[in-house]
Amino acid sequence: MNFASDNIVGASRPVLDALVAANEGAEGAYGTDRATKAAIERLGALFERDCAIQLVATGTAANALALSALVPPYGAALCHVEAHVMEDECGAPEFFAGGMKLLGLPGAGGKIAPRTLADYLAALPRHEKQMPPRALTLSQATEYGLVYTPSEIAALCEVAHEAGLKVHMDGARFANALVSLNVTPAEMTWKLGIDVLTFGATKNGCLAAEAVIFFDPALAEAMPYLRKRSGHTLSKGRLLGAQLEGYLGNDHWLDNARHANAMAARLAEGVAALPGARLAVPREANEVFPVLPRETVERLRAAGAVFHPWSERSLPEGERIAPHEMLVRLVASFATTEAQIEAFLQAAKG
Amino acid sequence: MNFASDNIVGASRPVLDALVAANEGAEGAYGTDRATKAAIERLGALFERDCAIQLVATGTAANALALSALVPPYGAALCHVEAHVMEDECGAPEFFAGGMKLLGLPGAGGKIAPRTLADYLAALPRHEKQMPPRALTLSQATEYGLVYTPSEIAALCEVAHEAGLKVHMDGARFANALVSLNVTPAEMTWKLGIDVLTFGATKNGCLAAEAVIFFDPALAEAMPYLRKRSGHTLSKGRLLGAQLEGYLGNDHWLDNARHANAMAARLAEGVAALPGARLAVPREANEVFPVLPRETVERLRAAGAVFHPWSERSLPEGERIAPHEMLVRLVASFATTEAQIEAFLQAAKG
Amino acid sequence: MNFASDNIVGASRPVLDALVAANEGAEGAYGTDRATKAAIERLGALFERDCAIQLVATGTAANALALSALVPPYGAALCHVEAHVMEDECGAPEFFAGGMKLLGLPGAGGKIAPRTLADYLAALPRHEKQMPPRALTLSQATEYGLVYTPSEIAALCEVAHEAGLKVHMDGARFANALVSLNVTPAEMTWKLGIDVLTFGATKNGCLAAEAVIFFDPALAEAMPYLRKRSGHTLSKGRLLGAQLEGYLGNDHWLDNARHANAMAARLAEGVAALPGARLAVPREANEVFPVLPRETVERLRAAGAVFHPWSERSLPEGERIAPHEMLVRLVASFATTEAQIEAFLQAAKG
Amino acid sequence: MNFASDNIVGASRPVLDALVAANEGAEGAYGTDRATKAAIERLGALFERDCAIQLVATGTAANALALSALVPPYGAALCHVEAHVMEDECGAPEFFAGGMKLLGLPGAGGKIAPRTLADYLAALPRHEKQMPPRALTLSQATEYGLVYTPSEIAALCEVAHEAGLKVHMDGARFANALVSLNVTPAEMTWKLGIDVLTFGATKNGCLAAEAVIFFDPALAEAMPYLRKRSGHTLSKGRLLGAQLEGYLGNDHWLDNARHANAMAARLAEGVAALPGARLAVPREANEVFPVLPRETVERLRAAGAVFHPWSERSLPEGERIAPHEMLVRLVASFATTEAQIEAFLQAAKG
Repeated sequence: MNFASDNIVGASRPVLDALVAANEGAEGAYGTDRATKAAIERLGALFERDCAIQLVATGTAANALALSALVPPYGAALCHVEAHVMEDECGAPEFFAGGMKLLGLPGAGGKIAPRTLADYLAALPRHEKQMPPRALTLSQATEYGLVYTPSEIAALCEVAHEAGLKVHMDGARFANALVSLNVTPAEMTWKLGIDVLTFGATKNGCLAAEAVIFFDPALAEAMPYLRKRSGHTLSKGRLLGAQLEGYLGNDHWLDNARHANAMAARLAEGVAALPGARLAVPREANEVFPVLPRETVERLRAAGAVFHPWSERSLPEGERIAPHEMLVRLVASFATTEAQIEAFLQAAKG
Repeated sequence: MNFASDNIVGASRPVLDALVAANEGAEGAYGTDRATKAAIERLGALFERDCAIQLVATGTAANALALSALVPPYGAALCHVEAHVMEDECGAPEFFAGGMKLLGLPGAGGKIAPRTLADYLAALPRHEKQMPPRALTLSQATEYGLVYTPSEIAALCEVAHEAGLKVHMDGARFANALVSLNVTPAEMTWKLGIDVLTFGATKNGCLAAEAVIFFDPALAEAMPYLRKRSGHTLSKGRLLGAQLEGYLGNDHWLDNARHANAMAARLAEGVAALPGARLAVPREANEVFPVLPRETVERLRAAGAVFHPWSERSLPEGERIAPHEMLVRLVASFATTEAQIEAFLQAAKG
Repeated sequence: MNFASDNIVGASRPVLDALVAANEGAEGAYGTDRATKAAIERLGALFERDCAIQLVATGTAANALALSALVPPYGAALCHVEAHVMEDECGAPEFFAGGMKLLGLPGAGGKIAPRTLADYLAALPRHEKQMPPRALTLSQATEYGLVYTPSEIAALCEVAHEAGLKVHMDGARFANALVSLNVTPAEMTWKLGIDVLTFGATKNGCLAAEAVIFFDPALAEAMPYLRKRSGHTLSKGRLLGAQLEGYLGNDHWLDNARHANAMAARLAEGVAALPGARLAVPREANEVFPVLPRETVERLRAAGAVFHPWSERSLPEGERIAPHEMLVRLVASFATTEAQIEAFLQAAKG
Repeated sequence: MNFASDNIVGASRPVLDALVAANEGAEGAYGTDRATKAAIERLGALFERDCAIQLVATGTAANALALSALVPPYGAALCHVEAHVMEDECGAPEFFAGGMKLLGLPGAGGKIAPRTLADYLAALPRHEKQMPPRALTLSQATEYGLVYTPSEIAALCEVAHEAGLKVHMDGARFANALVSLNVTPAEMTWKLGIDVLTFGATKNGCLAAEAVIFFDPALAEAMPYLRKRSGHTLSKGRLLGAQLEGYLGNDHWLDNARHANAMAARLAEGVAALPGARLAVPREANEVFPVLPRETVERLRAAGAVFHPWSERSLPEGERIAPHEMLVRLVASFATTEAQIEAFLQAAKG
């Protein structure tokens, strides 16, 4: 009954198999191996575009590298006030970009509204005393498990581009959002105006593999150097390439995401029906954010269930957590089973 | 016949097996998993000391993190003028330490002589206009495959410590040097004065796993933050822990290193006996640096042999490479076979 | 009728005279000159303590150097959400400290309440994923011209120190706050717990001179290097030392500040009495923040008056700026005259 | 008898007068004052070109800002191995450029030969593991007082540009070099290919004033932010503008430089004629580098003469300093008098 995160399990079987298969034989170092080349080619085909793609082992590295290619040391990036880059990466973007600042915008459920962005940019003083904004970064899905719709993304990109900002998408849960929207990778990214994507694979079936995808290769010229100097160029690059080969082959990644989302949907339905419980935000991808009576929380913990309390900072208007309640996060992954969910719900009921 | 490097092969079998075994089940994230804990415990036992240990995926990250914990942004680290940190990491130490400088010292075969270090430190101007040296970093084995002896290391540490410098060892080929000297890990490091070690495992049997080992935990207080902000804290930390479990178990790592060194010895003997060939420096670990007639080099390449030409900057006094000759590097690994060596020698003879 | 800021005038006469006098003769470079030594000695006496003191030419440099000595690259500093370091220094603290983050706290009139600080620190997650707070920086006077009382400062320092934070005071308007409180420099700083002070002199009579004062010299060990590498060590250091000699001699600085505050008081009284006008916050030092009818603002501008509109983000509870009104800032300096004030008030009346 | 440097004296009279004159009245802050505008206009006219110009208070800041606009954090700048940026600025270029590396080239008398540069660039490995060179910086005059001729500068710029490098000139002693060559400012800079100039004025008559001049304004787009975030944007900008107004008016700066050079010539002639003495390099600007018998050095010091010993690392071929000799540096400035020189020569003779 561990719903703490989608990073608590290992790799899914096809990913592991691909890794084992790629282990044999001599290969070029630093990403010149066959698995890496094949994975990059596959990603290009998937996104239907000539992209500049770099593989790295962590989402923090992917996000920070992407932002450091978009934002100068004296510039700023806009993000949701609770975005992972803002709250949970120990200043990686600031470090990689040599001192840049992240400016946090509010938004219910972790979503920035296009109007909020437009108003913020319009009110920003513009003088050499203020760090000029150069990028917007969106989390898809958000920190509250919501999925930006294509029209929301398009509107945000339009506002950003008009103000001279590039747009980065932090796709730590890219696959979960994608199958939720039922669109193609291109339709959720560059066709809407996204300039750079962190294509997350670790949470959805890999062990440690993310791709930084620049839809305009000209923006990526510095990337080989930026990756190397940050220690993220693996000498045995096949480790990353092979995982992605296993992940992308036979639409395995989409199957994984669909399963995780379905399990989350089942979980959402179940917890919403618990006595005194409700969902603080709708379940849209693979995360569920119920408000539970504290006694239910205690009962669950006593039964060995693992999950995290969650921030109440960005709840939808009108949602208030009472003193006897607690907002928690439950995450389903490709490995979540119906039995685990049933056990959790049983434990909640006591 | 690929002798280009020891990073051209994948993982050795026990490492891969450990990785597959550790893949199952739910585990804590960010290095709180059982495999990581076990690997760190094992390393502590191996070094017979209470250490602060962090696992990362690359040697560049390990070196840069270690140096950034020792050297302030306005300080300098001393290294051999051809050290990997100086020449091949695209400024990672400078980046991680916020602008520090590397100062390169000369030395035949990649070794810094204690006297060279002492003279350099004595001549250094000391004013706020000059970046104060705060660390010495030694490559074991060196860029020319030589192994610092315990007495050399002790002498260097003594000179460094007297001048207020900490000493880091870049052990990318730690195991190869260790079995060459036939000493214990402790006897090659902290017992001689080494303060921090990059314990390399990638080249000698892992896919991507290194440990940064602080023999004085007080020096490592910032390390969890430094690792996280550089994107080197894997969320599924078992990837690193499991590799090291497989690597260290049953002295597998020592077996690998002994095999690689033995293969290099065989190769050295063979190439030294080729017509017109000689070794530029003695073979001490798993690398061989022969001077070959250019026609031999061409013959080898025509036959499909892969290897790199090497720098002539730090050769022993008296060694001169003639215009019709070339200095090359040949690297043996845990996976090198006698058959590969025989094929190489045959191809060289034509 | 220029009330835009206190940096629009040159140096006051005694400061200029001291500069001219110190220009003669050969002197040691890089701050080893007699004027610099004398100024530093005078500051030590003024603060009744053995301090480590560095002179620089700008407040931005002073603040950023101070914070970079207190906060590691992976750490955070807490400040008011509208503090000068946060809003108006183009990321200088982030740059000097190698990527640190500033965390902004709310507070009416630019003041952080001790309770706000305590609650913020208590709620802060503590994990290697979050940048640990290491310093608190207070602006004295605040961005809304308010003056922290000694008991407020003491309470803030106590909360900060208990949480392991050092406390920096940005004293860009140190003198104006000091004479407003009628205490000694020591009584407004280290006796209350302040660890490091930016002693501002530029706005109150110098051309370009600030002192960074560490009350615990052990915290300042890196300062000579930090100052040099940031280009703030003047080779002809007498430029800074001489200004401070003229500034501090004969209590000239206190006279300047008393004059500026008195002029601001006169101005506050006058504008508060204008039809439809009120003060948004009390006048405590040398700045006045009136809410004026927009037609009054237009009338003033038409008459050539110069001043800035001001942020409405941190007004006291209950204060609302109506659409036909505007919040503006008026700053008096050592050079402000009664005639200028009368002309301004006349122009406002039309 | 203080020949330690040209930064041991204050400002020359016209510079001081201009400063005093500009002190009066209200002016725009942050460089929008009349004096700054006038100085920048004057510099543009002097260089016969539309330039982007920023004033700062120190040469270290000017050099570091210039290099940080040319070199990315992962890039390198080439300089003479004993250049001021390399040896005497405590890592300011590395800091400002976010971790860049300086690569030192050898050269007699502090001069890089075009052939040396070409060979160095040709031999440089080009891989993402190596920091790519992006700029060359030349010191005019050099650390040994030599002056690059126009044809040397043109040849160096050609080699650099062909390799994709921009060229910066560190003109800390720009005026002394200029009058030595008897060319115009344009003829010593952009007409030969120089892209960015540190126009030094501090040593030759100002107190603290340098200009960073970009001959291609497109390269300078980030400069206002870079200057502000490094704390080098003076709020009372007139301090810098006024000095340069006094410095440039009536060719005062050229008069100062001609005087300093003439005094150095007189000094060179005198010391070369001392028993057992010789010049290690020719006197070309305002510095003299004699090799003196150690007993002469002691006699001078006993008589109160002040000067520095100098590095022997980059002497012309064939020049050897014997154990009983010492290489020293003697610097003349605009304020040096014939009487001081005579006294020095008398003291040397004993």
